[in-house]
Amino acid sequence: MSKKDVNKEAVALHKKLGGKIRIQGAMQIKSRAELSLVYTPGVAAVSSLLAKHKNLTRDYTIKGKMIAVISDGSAVLGLGNIGPYGALPVMEGKCALFKTFADVDAFPIVLDTQDPDKIIEVVMAIAPVFGGINLEDIAAPKCFYIEEELKKRLDIPVMHDDQHGTAVVVLAALINALKVVKKNPKGLKIVVSGVGAAGVAVMKLIKQWAPHADIVAIDSEGVVWKGRKELNTTKQKLLKDGVIVATKGGSLADALVGADVFVGVSKPGVLTAAMVKTMAPKSIIFAMANPTPEIMPDVARAAGAAVVGTGRSDFPNQINNSLAFPGIFRGALDNRVRQITDAMKIKAAKNLAALVKRPTAERVVPGPFDKGVAQAVAKAIR
Amino acid sequence: MSKKDVNKEAVALHKKLGGKIRIQGAMQIKSRAELSLVYTPGVAAVSSLLAKHKNLTRDYTIKGKMIAVISDGSAVLGLGNIGPYGALPVMEGKCALFKTFADVDAFPIVLDTQDPDKIIEVVMAIAPVFGGINLEDIAAPKCFYIEEELKKRLDIPVMHDDQHGTAVVVLAALINALKVVKKNPKGLKIVVSGVGAAGVAVMKLIKQWAPHADIVAIDSEGVVWKGRKELNTTKQKLLKDGVIVATKGGSLADALVGADVFVGVSKPGVLTAAMVKTMAPKSIIFAMANPTPEIMPDVARAAGAAVVGTGRSDFPNQINNSLAFPGIFRGALDNRVRQITDAMKIKAAKNLAALVKRPTAERVVPGPFDKGVAQAVAKAIR
Repeated sequence: MSKKDVNKEAVALHKKLGGKIRIQGAMQIKSRAELSLVYTPGVAAVSSLLAKHKNLTRDYTIKGKMIAVISDGSAVLGLGNIGPYGALPVMEGKCALFKTFADVDAFPIVLDTQDPDKIIEVVMAIAPVFGGINLEDIAAPKCFYIEEELKKRLDIPVMHDDQHGTAVVVLAALINALKVVKKNPKGLKIVVSGVGAAGVAVMKLIKQWAPHADIVAIDSEGVVWKGRKELNTTKQKLLKDGVIVATKGGSLADALVGADVFVGVSKPGVLTAAMVKTMAPKSIIFAMANPTPEIMPDVARAAGAAVVGTGRSDFPNQINNSLAFPGIFRGALDNRVRQITDAMKIKAAKNLAALVKRPTAERVVPGPFDKGVAQAVAKAIR
Repeated sequence: MSKKDVNKEAVALHKKLGGKIRIQGAMQIKSRAELSLVYTPGVAAVSSLLAKHKNLTRDYTIKGKMIAVISDGSAVLGLGNIGPYGALPVMEGKCALFKTFADVDAFPIVLDTQDPDKIIEVVMAIAPVFGGINLEDIAAPKCFYIEEELKKRLDIPVMHDDQHGTAVVVLAALINALKVVKKNPKGLKIVVSGVGAAGVAVMKLIKQWAPHADIVAIDSEGVVWKGRKELNTTKQKLLKDGVIVATKGGSLADALVGADVFVGVSKPGVLTAAMVKTMAPKSIIFAMANPTPEIMPDVARAAGAAVVGTGRSDFPNQINNSLAFPGIFRGALDNRVRQITDAMKIKAAKNLAALVKRPTAERVVPGPFDKGVAQAVAKAIR
């Protein structure tokens, strides 16, 4: 289908469905006797129990099963700051995917505020209902602050999926791509284009996994390095913590000379065939700008790239976080995990990579409908 | 079943279910093609549309179908202020009833705050997802303030069910009880015991329906009248607006002499046989304290009451707001009603009463499982 046809069909389908999720009773209520158990007077006994022992809430209510998918609509897909109403179809879609891929019950909450402290306050206020919080499509850099604060203050797992879901899948793809090109993570030169939510998390997780890889970050001004005056605190911290290295400035083209890996979470078309030609032999390109990648796969291959992945379903190697988030929260719920740690994320990436028995240039990650994807990821979250 | 058995069975059932509602996808997603319609890239077209035309959100998302059942746990059933975790099973039960009785999708939100202004702020923030707000089990008098403010500020219907759901069902029961005893609302003397959320709404709605009835309100200090110094603003307003009348103080016993109707939304056991005997002939008693009524039905009947109702399912005439709220929000969603007015509530009560073709002393309201209950109520909300 052409892009125009997909759009047209998507709009028609949404109108027909009128919302992509429904509420269903966990049991049919057919008699007054059943009514008196699920509602008054019987429910009062459960309420009294939980009022005294709130730690039992997960056992007796939906809290043990339910994830909130929360967005303020400030960075939705490639559409930017389109607000809560524009964000709602995406969050509903995410909830539908949670159910489809991992049998996780998830409910969308889109917020009529974009103030970080108000977002934190609202999420704290509604948290008693949920067993986990999936933050979604919240703009950088406030997404870092919101996630950190909620992690500190809540006793349920909180994850900004644009950061960590993406990072897990990119790492899984990288693990298998390195097998394909027979390279070692040690001494690997990686260039990451885009220092937003996804880029920062990708760099941090790769560095955790491969401490001896060299990562260079590129933003709209070029190489991120200490010689630049205007760096925000996130970028300063990446340099200070040694996540990224750079002893001089330069452009994306400069940084790519001799690089082994390009990871793009930035803008359509920023990577050219000429740049790919200057990379090290058997280069790996993950061009994940949506909906149009940093470089089209055929162009990248023609310029010499050995492995190419994008965010799209119509090319091989779709690096999409729908491979990660359903399983991550499935595992978090099943094992009542309080925090999703880097060690868990790395293990999830390894499990995801291991699902592809014989990685090839055309298959470094499993497909979203492959069997066992969510379970493999879930096993890592404990 | 004994009360103890009901409690035990309810606790066991809740543990077995682990939550009384589930999320379900509106369609099965079985292929990449379907994935690209409900999620990226297709969903972006819907997001763009709604970002521009937020008034279309009800057509393309769950907003057209979804009610929030919101509580801060400050006045749960007869249990009092037990907080959000204790409240959650009740709110889930309510959502299950919404689905069972009116095919309304509803989601429970229990709040980790009891501050009225914070509650308002949180509800405002999450409102974009919902087509209506059912406030529940929030203590008086703050429930009045919260409901009024939300009604003013939101463009979706907001209803505190403890007030208005109860009022609709009491009025329906009263309409039919008066047919049974062959009395006219004009000049009727009604004593309402309890001036909390339910009592205030019941008095206001009855007065709207029967402007020439005399209503006397009783709180824990006795008759509410202007001679009392300590009256809160709610009670002062009831007097000032002429909803209630009283030219002198006194006890419940004093007020009941010659009264036609007793409505109890107060405490177990406050009404005695001796008091009933002083009421006018063919008296009507609605004793709705939960779980133990103001007077037991057999005692009231023996003392001369013609019609007796309670909140309980194990006696005739169960006056329970589950007869009203599912249909009220069904109608509000179907007809995209912005405010649920007194006129709509009175019409709902009349429709509910009319479902009982030949009212008798043992049957002044339909049962919750009777056919057509929700539809009859829904028809009034337009």
